Amino acid sequence: MSADLVQLVTDLARRARAASLVLATASTERKNAALTRLAELLPASTDALLAANAQDLAFARENHLTGAQIDRLALTPKSIAHIAEGVRQVAALPDPVGEELERTVRPNGLEIRRIRVPIGVIGIIYEARPNVTIDCAALCLKSGNAAILRGGKEIFHTNVALAALVTTALADAGLPKDAVQLIPTTDRAALTTLLKLDTLVHCIIPRGGESLIRFVTENSTIPVIKHFKGVCFVYIDRDADPEMAEKIVINAKTQRPGVCNAAEQLLVHADVAEGILPRLAQALLAHKVELRCDPAGAAILQKHGLAHRAAEPQDFTAEFLDLIMAVRVTPSLDDAIATINRDSSAHSDAIITRNAATAQRFLAGVDSATVFWNASTRFNDGFEFGLGAEIGISTDRLHARGPMGLRELCSYKYLIAGNGQVRG
Amino acid sequence: MSADLVQLVTDLARRARAASLVLATASTERKNAALTRLAELLPASTDALLAANAQDLAFARENHLTGAQIDRLALTPKSIAHIAEGVRQVAALPDPVGEELERTVRPNGLEIRRIRVPIGVIGIIYEARPNVTIDCAALCLKSGNAAILRGGKEIFHTNVALAALVTTALADAGLPKDAVQLIPTTDRAALTTLLKLDTLVHCIIPRGGESLIRFVTENSTIPVIKHFKGVCFVYIDRDADPEMAEKIVINAKTQRPGVCNAAEQLLVHADVAEGILPRLAQALLAHKVELRCDPAGAAILQKHGLAHRAAEPQDFTAEFLDLIMAVRVTPSLDDAIATINRDSSAHSDAIITRNAATAQRFLAGVDSATVFWNASTRFNDGFEFGLGAEIGISTDRLHARGPMGLRELCSYKYLIAGNGQVRG
Repeated sequence: MSADLVQLVTDLARRARAASLVLATASTERKNAALTRLAELLPASTDALLAANAQDLAFARENHLTGAQIDRLALTPKSIAHIAEGVRQVAALPDPVGEELERTVRPNGLEIRRIRVPIGVIGIIYEARPNVTIDCAALCLKSGNAAILRGGKEIFHTNVALAALVTTALADAGLPKDAVQLIPTTDRAALTTLLKLDTLVHCIIPRGGESLIRFVTENSTIPVIKHFKGVCFVYIDRDADPEMAEKIVINAKTQRPGVCNAAEQLLVHADVAEGILPRLAQALLAHKVELRCDPAGAAILQKHGLAHRAAEPQDFTAEFLDLIMAVRVTPSLDDAIATINRDSSAHSDAIITRNAATAQRFLAGVDSATVFWNASTRFNDGFEFGLGAEIGISTDRLHARGPMGLRELCSYKYLIAGNGQVRG
Repeated sequence: MSADLVQLVTDLARRARAASLVLATASTERKNAALTRLAELLPASTDALLAANAQDLAFARENHLTGAQIDRLALTPKSIAHIAEGVRQVAALPDPVGEELERTVRPNGLEIRRIRVPIGVIGIIYEARPNVTIDCAALCLKSGNAAILRGGKEIFHTNVALAALVTTALADAGLPKDAVQLIPTTDRAALTTLLKLDTLVHCIIPRGGESLIRFVTENSTIPVIKHFKGVCFVYIDRDADPEMAEKIVINAKTQRPGVCNAAEQLLVHADVAEGILPRLAQALLAHKVELRCDPAGAAILQKHGLAHRAAEPQDFTAEFLDLIMAVRVTPSLDDAIATINRDSSAHSDAIITRNAATAQRFLAGVDSATVFWNASTRFNDGFEFGLGAEIGISTDRLHARGPMGLRELCSYKYLIAGNGQVRG
């Protein structure tokens, strides 16, 4: 690894740390002024952004990226306006910093207050999506955190152009321009260097595929909040309303199959499988969903002449992100809970039942970030939760679990006031 | 690394994970029954515990550990009774699991509840202190977490005897005995294996010296909550009450110099250094504290004929854990805040001042876990905060910062109830 590169990334992180101390006590008005300015600059800079984006698109075409991959990279005047609107929404959210979370007075007279404060310096490692650059910059800024952004190389020129707008907006609002910095190289060694700077950077959030997250987890000495995969289950209980079950399964599987809160796995209670599965399978097939079944499920579909294939073992823990669903028949609620706790990614799992006692056992027993009763797994989302915006959906159990909004981008500190107390 | 050892640790973690799912929904009564039983078993097993401890003490003497090190290993009937009393105190604390932290109803009718739940499986890596084994077992059990304990090799036989009592107490209360397990080998490779089992273990808490914590941080793919060092500052402001300043500095430095919340660093505002420092130095010297001064501080003490030595640069970031204090004269509040944010370990830092506006600026600007105004840094402690007991003092910013009690040993999950809602 070149000494120059190590120096470059270390200096960048030092500047981020210094900026974070200023940002931590910056007023809400000043932070919102920077966000509002950024929201103005984005559409006003459409030509420059599209020109930078064209460089990335040309590179993508030369390197034979798929059409879907290229679509994800592309900026348009409309997508730029949409990104700017997201920034305005973040500006409109309440400032999480400074909120008093607790106050107690101890018998010795010490007053102990717990106050929400920014985490400090957050490194965001993500793949090739231009909106992420601005979304993350806006959320970190509003929550008083300095951000170090490291986007995918496929979108490098676009990110440089976007980051320049953030720098301008910060400066125009009188905030340190180093509060949001893009790592100015696509060299992988820059990332490896960053992940070891644990005295300057306080948190790493990787957003992307499994191999990126695995790389970050294995190489970071900085605490990482993972946004991992969603192997999400819907369990149709013996006491399910068949129509509701169908409506929810179709929505959870097909409304947007490529996202982490889409359902991948279906469990049906054996007592109702014969009654519910054929019609449900028909509806899924009508939505072009391929069904990969266990022997019991396959036997039922076979009898009704419905298309399916035998599941391979790995299908039962798969995140397909596609119009594919694995199907199993389960003998009991307890078996369903145990299956989910073993095979799901503990992201978003649902039960469909009219039986409240059964639902309570499922909600208590399923060890997942979000557990649904009679609702689609697709609702596991910061906007749907009313958080206003999210930096992602944490699959970790420490600090933040499930949708991460502004509040989850904060830590806390204790402020203690006395009048000369000493410990005896 | 031997395949057998990997298998042994992996199997142990698998059993811990299975036990954690049972423990997560165990009743408060059952958990308290196990704790109460453990508190009975400890004094009743005094002879067996002392016999096991004697093996460790013999090993320690053979290996020429220092008297202080041997003291830390030693169990006595009195220390066993004290440990049992700690377990009873944990039993008496409120159960943190199941508490509703938030409830909202969305416009679409979805009811979203956020509920406190155990983290899952927690690995505790610690050095040679027998009380830690039982303290950690009790805190994890009460908070519904399965624990994997890995203590220092110097205390191995004692820990085996203590863990056997925990196993008996769990079984007697009808809880899974695998809920608390000691790694049954002192081989370092067992630790390295454990730290990679990120699908089974959800959190690692290292307690001990810097090299242990560094090793764990560098080798773990499981999230780590560090309990690092305390380089704690007291800043004597221009508007300090000199008597209060002396009382607090003496307490923070000398009441128990070997612990993480003891003060190591003194800053004195230049305007009052000439007036305050000589008498304060005299008091510190009377408590046998060695003073390591910057040139300005040294000049003042020199003039008054008070013993001191010139500080080396590393003294200004040192955790002495001894009767040594580094002393600097600072030109301003802003310089004091910047010095602390650069040189402290962000653990416990204090200002002494009568000026409320100055205090507010210090409390807001110092980026540390706990910031004190007119009180000793020694109060940064779970018992002093009213948490009842602590598993340590986190120096991290994610999940838990400062004293970690039962609440900080928990995560949360979202439970969502609907009546057939799907996402549009």
